Amino acid sequence: MKALLFDGEQPQLAEAPEPVLAEGYALLRTTLAGICNTDLEILRGYSGFRGVLGHELVGRVERGPAAWIGKRVVSEINFACGRCLMCERALGRHCPDRTVMGILGSDGAFAERVAVPVANLHAVPDGLSDERAVFTEPLAAAFEIAEQIDLGEHREALVFGDGKLGLLVAQVLAYFGLSVLAVGKHQDHLAILADRGIATTLLDDWDPRPSDLVVEATGSDAGFALAVSATRPRGTFVLKSTVAGKSTLDLAPLVINEISVVGSRCGPFPPALAALASDSIEVDGMVAARRPLSDGVAALELAGERGCLKVLLEP
Amino acid sequence: MKALLFDGEQPQLAEAPEPVLAEGYALLRTTLAGICNTDLEILRGYSGFRGVLGHELVGRVERGPAAWIGKRVVSEINFACGRCLMCERALGRHCPDRTVMGILGSDGAFAERVAVPVANLHAVPDGLSDERAVFTEPLAAAFEIAEQIDLGEHREALVFGDGKLGLLVAQVLAYFGLSVLAVGKHQDHLAILADRGIATTLLDDWDPRPSDLVVEATGSDAGFALAVSATRPRGTFVLKSTVAGKSTLDLAPLVINEISVVGSRCGPFPPALAALASDSIEVDGMVAARRPLSDGVAALELAGERGCLKVLLEP
Repeated sequence: MKALLFDGEQPQLAEAPEPVLAEGYALLRTTLAGICNTDLEILRGYSGFRGVLGHELVGRVERGPAAWIGKRVVSEINFACGRCLMCERALGRHCPDRTVMGILGSDGAFAERVAVPVANLHAVPDGLSDERAVFTEPLAAAFEIAEQIDLGEHREALVFGDGKLGLLVAQVLAYFGLSVLAVGKHQDHLAILADRGIATTLLDDWDPRPSDLVVEATGSDAGFALAVSATRPRGTFVLKSTVAGKSTLDLAPLVINEISVVGSRCGPFPPALAALASDSIEVDGMVAARRPLSDGVAALELAGERGCLKVLLEP
Repeated sequence: MKALLFDGEQPQLAEAPEPVLAEGYALLRTTLAGICNTDLEILRGYSGFRGVLGHELVGRVERGPAAWIGKRVVSEINFACGRCLMCERALGRHCPDRTVMGILGSDGAFAERVAVPVANLHAVPDGLSDERAVFTEPLAAAFEIAEQIDLGEHREALVFGDGKLGLLVAQVLAYFGLSVLAVGKHQDHLAILADRGIATTLLDDWDPRPSDLVVEATGSDAGFALAVSATRPRGTFVLKSTVAGKSTLDLAPLVINEISVVGSRCGPFPPALAALASDSIEVDGMVAARRPLSDGVAALELAGERGCLKVLLEP
């Protein structure tokens, strides 16, 4: 089958062997996949991954339990052991023995077919298009904040970063009733939020007013420092960048102002699917391009251009 | 009056003017004061403080409201404005206009007399000696963890660091019923905890087993990195070092493991006083030396020696 592979040097379109189905796995035919910043970081060495890239997909079940055959699905990306302390606590996303689709030890979705655990499948509701459903995984990462923090204790939030993740986070916080101010660098990205009634400002025009809840989705050291300084004493600072890397940071403000920093990664699929199905979250305006998988290498390059939002791949 | 001053270069014993009493302040005669690591950091430039050092004291009220005259007291160290958003929320310890006794903009307690807001006073219970009551301020900082985290959700904790603060933190967590393992570098310090039935280990002998609750009280970058690695996914990491400084840290584990980092500083005096009065916390064994204020400069040097616990000053 055709697949977009990474060998540690360059991404390349290649003929890859068909996925082998282990016990408890299903075979999906990929219908649409999305390029995430994590994919671009992997090309720069993050996680040391080798294999088929991609972890955002919509597919159709070709092989697996009879009840699933032919179903249109999305798949969670952490493949957990199901037996450890973390899995017992329903925290399979933190299973120490997990593999992660297209990121760590399991082939990904930029291919004609991909194997995933049946336990990771979620049926896509009728009426929710593939082009919207493919946002389930990144939107779930935004919903993760609500799993970790009692949003009912907050009335307002600042979101730094107007990339793909920042736009989803701002919308999810607004969806939970918070008064959100999104601070970004791209007027056209911020316009997507403004159209949904969310307050926005360009960073250069931002009038610094601290908040009790601040989300860092810029992925830069400068963004981290700025977002910390924008967090009120005893406030909560959510760190959403997976590839923060080694940073030179002054931790003293965290102690002096007693700030809680909450690292946040993958999230729950059901609320993300429901919010997409009810059109509560705008994602259509976030699609920058849709390319055939055969143009995958160029599509990765496009996705890496400054200010580019979601690039979709169609096998 | 005699006072231990810092002029930005060297600490020195000097004749200082009597404190001026502003509206709402009381004048205390210092009976006993304690040297804290923050004092030592101030000598290295922390906070840019100039003036009378010292923020841990027991004293007797000489001037102020009639009801307080002659009372034996301890004093909270943050002098708040009482009118701002933080003060309205009963978070005067985070008042942006605060001064801090002996640390920021207000003269401290290494002197014969010190002026403090009446609102900051707490009477020392009869039967609680000065030598124990002088630990109220640092013990309150340890109790702060219980203000910020629901300790009832935790059964066990790891405490890194067996200096003054680490020893108090380990005891407070045990006081709240947690099963604590204290990891340190000084067998004689750890023995203070072991005598109270708290599990201890030298760092070199520590068998790394992650915990859901980890407190960092070493104040070193290496300690920070180790403590993060000892925090289980979705766990809580409490940062208790005020002088963390600029550090090169890999933030990715915080995100990948969804760890909450809770910066923690000054705490509530009433539970600390109560715990001292009921002999629930061992502090007597933590007194390394008791010196007259006139030997203050040498006492600061002694307190700065590696492995030295609490040095007390007697005006």
